[in-house]
Amino acid sequence: MSSAITSLTHGQYQTVYNVFSFALASMLFTSIFLLVSQGRVLPRYRQALVISAMVCGIAAYHYIRIFNSFNEAYLPTTLGGDYALSPMGFNEAYRYVDWLLTVPLLLLETVAVLALPKVTRASLLNKLIPASALMIVLGYPGEIAADTAPKMIWGALSTIPFLFILYVLFVQLTKSLDRQSPEVSATVGRLRLLLIATWGVYPISFLFPVFGLDGSDAFVARQVGYSVADVLAKCLYGLVIYKIARMKSADDNPAFAADEFEDEPASARTAA
Amino acid sequence: MSSAITSLTHGQYQTVYNVFSFALASMLFTSIFLLVSQGRVLPRYRQALVISAMVCGIAAYHYIRIFNSFNEAYLPTTLGGDYALSPMGFNEAYRYVDWLLTVPLLLLETVAVLALPKVTRASLLNKLIPASALMIVLGYPGEIAADTAPKMIWGALSTIPFLFILYVLFVQLTKSLDRQSPEVSATVGRLRLLLIATWGVYPISFLFPVFGLDGSDAFVARQVGYSVADVLAKCLYGLVIYKIARMKSADDNPAFAADEFEDEPASARTAA
Repeated sequence: MSSAITSLTHGQYQTVYNVFSFALASMLFTSIFLLVSQGRVLPRYRQALVISAMVCGIAAYHYIRIFNSFNEAYLPTTLGGDYALSPMGFNEAYRYVDWLLTVPLLLLETVAVLALPKVTRASLLNKLIPASALMIVLGYPGEIAADTAPKMIWGALSTIPFLFILYVLFVQLTKSLDRQSPEVSATVGRLRLLLIATWGVYPISFLFPVFGLDGSDAFVARQVGYSVADVLAKCLYGLVIYKIARMKSADDNPAFAADEFEDEPASARTAA
Repeated sequence: MSSAITSLTHGQYQTVYNVFSFALASMLFTSIFLLVSQGRVLPRYRQALVISAMVCGIAAYHYIRIFNSFNEAYLPTTLGGDYALSPMGFNEAYRYVDWLLTVPLLLLETVAVLALPKVTRASLLNKLIPASALMIVLGYPGEIAADTAPKMIWGALSTIPFLFILYVLFVQLTKSLDRQSPEVSATVGRLRLLLIATWGVYPISFLFPVFGLDGSDAFVARQVGYSVADVLAKCLYGLVIYKIARMKSADDNPAFAADEFEDEPASARTAA
């Protein structure tokens, strides 16, 4: 958006094309996997799985749009030669539309899978969901700004709700982890680290143009970075949510554990 | 329809394009969510969920049509430049076809989720459904009228069934809320406010040309207004219906509540 790359080499074009297709396939099949795996967790955890599936499904939809937009935007000049930007342009705003829908849902699935008491859950969501929407909305003007000053200002404004989200997840949510088993607590801890590690990619890509990285190599790096971060933040994240739901289901119900697992937990064997 | 906008700036085009895509994705994934979440409510509330899913699915279909029509209607003149109206034109009649199907269904899902006695339900639906169809049918000649006089006449005629619907929802339906729990009654109250707030957008957009707002900015504002109102009136509305169905399911059956929720309601714990 901010910097229209008018020409890509054959190799650059192929790289972006393949990464978009990789992200699309990952999103689509993680979504299907999570939908058909609902029977593998107890009913109270299924809403978290469905929300995770919607996140990956919405992302798959947007990768179809991004992929098609890229395909129409860059057309080959000669066989095996460079690709030139067509008047259609490349529409990356889809990313922000996607994030506006999926980032609040990612936080919703994180809280949903913990099956917290209603008051705690409502208190966390009333902070996390508005903050995440605000973070995306404030980031967009910075993404499309051509100059450094507005980019930095919108970026800084967007960082405020981001830090608030981290505070809620790392301080307030921690208090709710006491009632979880040690194994679940540890996995939730890793889930939060995954969230920080992947969300951290976005501001770095966002700031590429500020560092003077705005040629076609930087364009390719930004597309690859966003796509890989999306796959980790949505597909891998959704699969960790699924793992937590499985562990909690086994903890909650020995009969379910005996049906689902050959040998665990120990309580299932003694109860059976 | 009434005023063909022959040219859009790059920014105007992008705004409409992204809003249509946002609405399409919201409709599609809300529809899927409601379909796969049927197990999260008792059987007696599933028909309301399925109808809500059909409403969002029908709207998703029409947004695909609107999106594609818009894409073919406006073509870029130069890279990053204006978009000119092609001979294909932009077909907005889809909106009225959509409303003719979805607005009666929205009222049907509203009544269905309350699980009212059969006589009460039939009495409400025999008023709401014909009135809503009449409202849409009378609005359409006003939408396509170029002159102010026929626009105002059809608009006024369309308002009569609209006021009748409000009367049924706010006076007659209220009598049926006595038998609902306070929490359900309060949520139904918010649902009705959501209905008024979102349906109110349509007559405002309808009257844009009367106020002399018929340039390309007004076109963009009308498309954004219709799309956001559609998402709130169908997706958010459907999700509130789901929430009501969840609350009523938990109230109706403590065993279901114990399976679905870790800790609520209190009645589930004592009964278990």
